[in-house]
Amino acid sequence: MAIRITNGGVCAAAGFFASGIHCGIRANKAKKDLALIVSSVPAQAAAVYTTNLVKGAPIIVTKEHLQNGVAQAIVCNSGIANTCCADGVNTAREMARIAASELELKEANIIVASTGVIGRPLDLAPIRAGMPALVDALDHRPEASDSASNAIMTTDTIIKSVAVEFVLDGKICHLGGIAKGSGMIHPNMATMLVFITTDAAIAPELLQKALSGDIQKTFNMLSIDGDTSTNDMVVVMANGMAGNPEIVSEDESYAVFMQALNTVNVSLCRMIAGDGEGATRLLECQVSGAADPAAARTAAKSVICSSLLKAAMFGADANWGRVMCAIGYSGADVDISKIDISFRSPAGTIQVCEQGAGVEFSEELAKQILLEKEIEILVDLNSGSESATAWGCDLTYDYVKINGDYRT
Amino acid sequence: MAIRITNGGVCAAAGFFASGIHCGIRANKAKKDLALIVSSVPAQAAAVYTTNLVKGAPIIVTKEHLQNGVAQAIVCNSGIANTCCADGVNTAREMARIAASELELKEANIIVASTGVIGRPLDLAPIRAGMPALVDALDHRPEASDSASNAIMTTDTIIKSVAVEFVLDGKICHLGGIAKGSGMIHPNMATMLVFITTDAAIAPELLQKALSGDIQKTFNMLSIDGDTSTNDMVVVMANGMAGNPEIVSEDESYAVFMQALNTVNVSLCRMIAGDGEGATRLLECQVSGAADPAAARTAAKSVICSSLLKAAMFGADANWGRVMCAIGYSGADVDISKIDISFRSPAGTIQVCEQGAGVEFSEELAKQILLEKEIEILVDLNSGSESATAWGCDLTYDYVKINGDYRT
Repeated sequence: MAIRITNGGVCAAAGFFASGIHCGIRANKAKKDLALIVSSVPAQAAAVYTTNLVKGAPIIVTKEHLQNGVAQAIVCNSGIANTCCADGVNTAREMARIAASELELKEANIIVASTGVIGRPLDLAPIRAGMPALVDALDHRPEASDSASNAIMTTDTIIKSVAVEFVLDGKICHLGGIAKGSGMIHPNMATMLVFITTDAAIAPELLQKALSGDIQKTFNMLSIDGDTSTNDMVVVMANGMAGNPEIVSEDESYAVFMQALNTVNVSLCRMIAGDGEGATRLLECQVSGAADPAAARTAAKSVICSSLLKAAMFGADANWGRVMCAIGYSGADVDISKIDISFRSPAGTIQVCEQGAGVEFSEELAKQILLEKEIEILVDLNSGSESATAWGCDLTYDYVKINGDYRT
Repeated sequence: MAIRITNGGVCAAAGFFASGIHCGIRANKAKKDLALIVSSVPAQAAAVYTTNLVKGAPIIVTKEHLQNGVAQAIVCNSGIANTCCADGVNTAREMARIAASELELKEANIIVASTGVIGRPLDLAPIRAGMPALVDALDHRPEASDSASNAIMTTDTIIKSVAVEFVLDGKICHLGGIAKGSGMIHPNMATMLVFITTDAAIAPELLQKALSGDIQKTFNMLSIDGDTSTNDMVVVMANGMAGNPEIVSEDESYAVFMQALNTVNVSLCRMIAGDGEGATRLLECQVSGAADPAAARTAAKSVICSSLLKAAMFGADANWGRVMCAIGYSGADVDISKIDISFRSPAGTIQVCEQGAGVEFSEELAKQILLEKEIEILVDLNSGSESATAWGCDLTYDYVKINGDYRT
């Protein structure tokens, strides 16, 4: 079951093409704002969406279009979210129509997505004018995936892209994804924008099951700032062009596919967390020894979401009391007096709490460990064998700066 | 039912004395760190506590001591929380014993509280050495309440103190309180440290009922940073020295008492929110038109807790999409398409959203309104007649700075 990391993002899989251009939704001409991902044949498609009651208009249209589980293209703009706008759903529908027309595809096979400011109308004129160039630019090379990735970024500072290669029944398959997300990230049953493509053949119900199952362990365990966005979606398209026999049961091939999907999703989660708005550090909280999986997940996520812990990590301050505090109010059913806590990074590992009480430790070593870019917070509940991992980032001056005046 | 604001904090009520000194728990000699509040006669006492599973040792001892509903003194230190320490409960017990001995009161009538760093042991030597001076300094004047208030502060920048005067059956009564709280504030069934005294006579079960009921509308609607502290408590002591006939039923006198208590608690909530760590603005979210009280409370609190909205308020940015977003993920059962949103401050009122969609508004006027020190966020759900108010503050560079290296 070897899963090999490769490159190419959404273009790693056979038959997928991507492009990204600046069409003029944003004033800054140096920033791409319109992306396209297309499969050369119709693909099985599965998705999960935000649970926020306020839903971006593109979510509503995409849900309609994916009712039959088939899609062939994704069109996505950044700059304007097309959310809380008077005529937003018609605007999203028209955006799909413009792409379908230029691509000569069925409108119902277009997935539409938007990200950016809420409440401002999305002007379709630049999208209509830019569509021919966007379609012209479609390409299967890795650079094309990067172009699309770049075009969906908002406050993101890095492209988030990963792909893997794996074998199903002797056929080489690929699965790759790109993601956008930097703030307003606290997914609940769905997440920011993540577009995944694969050339593996898999039955639509299993594709949806694989996605819905994996996000519980990946994107739902990620938080930048506790705010669940209105426009979150994770979409996976499987076009079957690898030529493997279609996965139709939860057999060994399904297990390999799940492992490939999980590898890509964990990788994207870490990229998103590490590039959280203003972040200087990636935080990974690993909770082990839980009596049940829910307790592990709840505790891990509460630690990652604590503003106080996030600020302490920015200051490289080994204030483990904030880890205890966050577990204590998480709602997880844990025995506080059994908890052990350590911090780990490339600079070393240090235990700071044993059985719920502080232990003597070297502040100098703790500082060295916490000054690294990737910090692991290790929590052992010593009450069972279940575990969970959550990802987040530190809370910094720049988070405040970025969000103090986001609209201008 | 006139409630008149007066001064004196916990010393406004007859028979209450207070003091605050620097005893040496903190290195900084200019900062008081030990407070005492004493009633000249045993008082009825009621309290609510943090729901965090991690509980400070003083919480455990105070709960024991208040089982009979009677107390006569509160001793409280700042600097060290006495939480997650190996022998914390014995330390808290000994702290009560030291105060009881010097005051010549029963140990079981002493309420003990601590606030500060979690996980470091509390050294009792300075408390033991300072107790005679602390008792010597007891005084009934308003300055004495301020001394106690000062001694319980941690990152607080202002003293939080208020008192009211009211009449029960022809007798002038007083109710006053002091509070400490600036970070790690997101109460759940309890709150930071709040000490309230009154000379009104009220039966113990009604005193507890009044307190437990009022905090749902006051301290439980307050959030600085979403972190529920381990050491929260709100205590009220009623010594009956005003001479009113004891309140023994939910009659008109009980209603007046409730109004007095609510006035003091709302006032303390606003002071705590306005003095949130690093805060430059007090935020008050008023949700009206809700179908039920729970929806109103849930929506109001979600808005106040949104990091993105808090950062936007710091930047005086009228980014109302973040208000909508926070209501949408709050879990409150609301019809998004009916929501109206306005911002109000002494500089004026501006509507920014009507029936779930943006309206044209003057960005200049919005900026003027949001640059004031106290901002009201008005949300009308247009679905009923229930309402709720929540309090919070903006998210600033200084919050990050304060919490990036709190322990040093």
